[in-house]
Amino acid sequence: MTQTNSNALQSLIWTDNRLDLLDQRLLPEETVYLPLTGVEEVWEAIRHLKVRGAPAIGIAAAYGVIFGSRSVDAGKSEWLAAVNESAARLATSRPTAVNLFWALDRMKARAAELAGSSLELEACKDALLIEAIAIQSEDEETNRLIGEHALTLFEDGMGVLTHCNAGGLATAKYGTALAPFYLAQEKGISLKVFADETRPVLQGARLTAFELHQAGVDVTLICDNMAGMVMSKGWINAVIVGTDRVAANGDVANKIGTYSVAVLAKAHGIPFYVACPLSTIDLNTPSGDQIPIEERDAEEVTEGFGKRTAPRGVKVFNPAFDVTPHEYVTAIITEKGVVRAPFDTNLKKLFEA
Amino acid sequence: MTQTNSNALQSLIWTDNRLDLLDQRLLPEETVYLPLTGVEEVWEAIRHLKVRGAPAIGIAAAYGVIFGSRSVDAGKSEWLAAVNESAARLATSRPTAVNLFWALDRMKARAAELAGSSLELEACKDALLIEAIAIQSEDEETNRLIGEHALTLFEDGMGVLTHCNAGGLATAKYGTALAPFYLAQEKGISLKVFADETRPVLQGARLTAFELHQAGVDVTLICDNMAGMVMSKGWINAVIVGTDRVAANGDVANKIGTYSVAVLAKAHGIPFYVACPLSTIDLNTPSGDQIPIEERDAEEVTEGFGKRTAPRGVKVFNPAFDVTPHEYVTAIITEKGVVRAPFDTNLKKLFEA
Repeated sequence: MTQTNSNALQSLIWTDNRLDLLDQRLLPEETVYLPLTGVEEVWEAIRHLKVRGAPAIGIAAAYGVIFGSRSVDAGKSEWLAAVNESAARLATSRPTAVNLFWALDRMKARAAELAGSSLELEACKDALLIEAIAIQSEDEETNRLIGEHALTLFEDGMGVLTHCNAGGLATAKYGTALAPFYLAQEKGISLKVFADETRPVLQGARLTAFELHQAGVDVTLICDNMAGMVMSKGWINAVIVGTDRVAANGDVANKIGTYSVAVLAKAHGIPFYVACPLSTIDLNTPSGDQIPIEERDAEEVTEGFGKRTAPRGVKVFNPAFDVTPHEYVTAIITEKGVVRAPFDTNLKKLFEA
Repeated sequence: MTQTNSNALQSLIWTDNRLDLLDQRLLPEETVYLPLTGVEEVWEAIRHLKVRGAPAIGIAAAYGVIFGSRSVDAGKSEWLAAVNESAARLATSRPTAVNLFWALDRMKARAAELAGSSLELEACKDALLIEAIAIQSEDEETNRLIGEHALTLFEDGMGVLTHCNAGGLATAKYGTALAPFYLAQEKGISLKVFADETRPVLQGARLTAFELHQAGVDVTLICDNMAGMVMSKGWINAVIVGTDRVAANGDVANKIGTYSVAVLAKAHGIPFYVACPLSTIDLNTPSGDQIPIEERDAEEVTEGFGKRTAPRGVKVFNPAFDVTPHEYVTAIITEKGVVRAPFDTNLKKLFEA
């Protein structure tokens, strides 16, 4: 067993009084860490997509609250007010990011608890920083568990296809769908990863291929329309993807193109796995039909590379996500283990245990 | 019945002593016709991909032979020598283009026939020009017939998906897979076309969406990975594509991604049609396994838009074509009619009639 994962990039590194944040807009050409020390810097990093991925955004916001409150010396109530004010400010950075609000609410609740306790102000500050660090380390631990469970499904020498980026860059570490690849590398298990480039925004090319290549994982980049051909060649033994939301019946919303990959996998007899934390499973959404699909600007398709590649005025359909019906899902892999059909009953059990 | 196709672009327009050639490298942003009058200009246009598509290249070369021989006044044997010399020069412009050699051979054979006849030199020159014009008009007629046969499979109001560009820009007029769309427009039949953008080189976005939009055909551009989703919505009633080569058993080689579309179509119960002239059917190739698949430069995938979009040094798999096994092909549409399974016997019959 060799420990070779030291090259795996982390998108967020806390060092005493500073958050070093990898500027994802510059990838894959430049690897630049921005040293953040203030709440406005964090706000700006979230707003301008320097950090992306729900867990990573939540973690950055938690540290932002620390920056916004740590210099308050007047007293505990002034400190609590600064925490709440910072959280309110950070909440405006990305109004649709559920994980952002979850992290801010958790920081506010912990700060209120500390403010009401017998601890001194400095001890409160220390304890709140521990909360932010816990948000980050719990995410890392969740992803490691997802990776461990996923790895039970893979064998040495297998080819695995992934779509979009559910990787370490979007999380504290490891990612969800990419976690088994990093863990396999740590354990000396050899997997051959194929990464769909994932049009129109190319998260597969810019991020997945980047972070796996950077870490020394064996990764081959393909265009989305090559997935069927590589499957037909027998190069793919499994597909694994992340997800934005899993409905109660096991329907999976994820980046556009995921559904095509799932249909192709089924046609080739290849298992299709979905990796996600429990927090992504929404038992209040009965099925994928209830998940709204955002349509994005035509320009992402027609001039996504700084150069016009389609005629002006042509109609474009550009959905950001699609829904893969649960019939196509072989298993959903969470930090609590591998869930198979029937998903409606088995997903519920995850929350009862 | 309304004639509304007057806007359809032609890639090659012969006007007395000049070939106006649409510079396809500038599409979709600029529509520029290059006035060609010499053999070197035609050579340069073919070599530098200003003209593309097997039939269009053959037509351009035929006119190139005219340019290279028309000013010879010394005598018929000198004229024939100039024809052969021009053809030899033009043959070096694109050494892998089969249609180029076919057109040049036809021009040389006709010139030899004329040189051996009792016709005067000027009459020989006129007759050879008629041969070049015939190459162009026969291609247009072939495509019109393909379109007429294809149109018998479509009904007013249908949604039809196409991949890559088998359109008028690649041929004398109409194209193969796109021919039914132009004919439908001429006949007042309403079809809703979806065009895959076709990574990595984006022929669907740059050419298919361009030429259909330009002609006023209802076309919607999508990324390749959206094909499955639009099928699942019920928007697609048929798929039609062109092909580079059809094997004797009906296996179809075409632009990368065609196979994925065929598998997705089958999974959704959507017919998958292939449009091509008889000249594309190769009875000497028993099956698709015997068709070599060219792999192209990684840079097409990693920096195809003038901007690097993937990490340097990452492995890339970039096949130019794939093979769709005949089980996925509902019908092959030629100028002689619609051919269905069993393809091995029915394709052979086309050549016996």
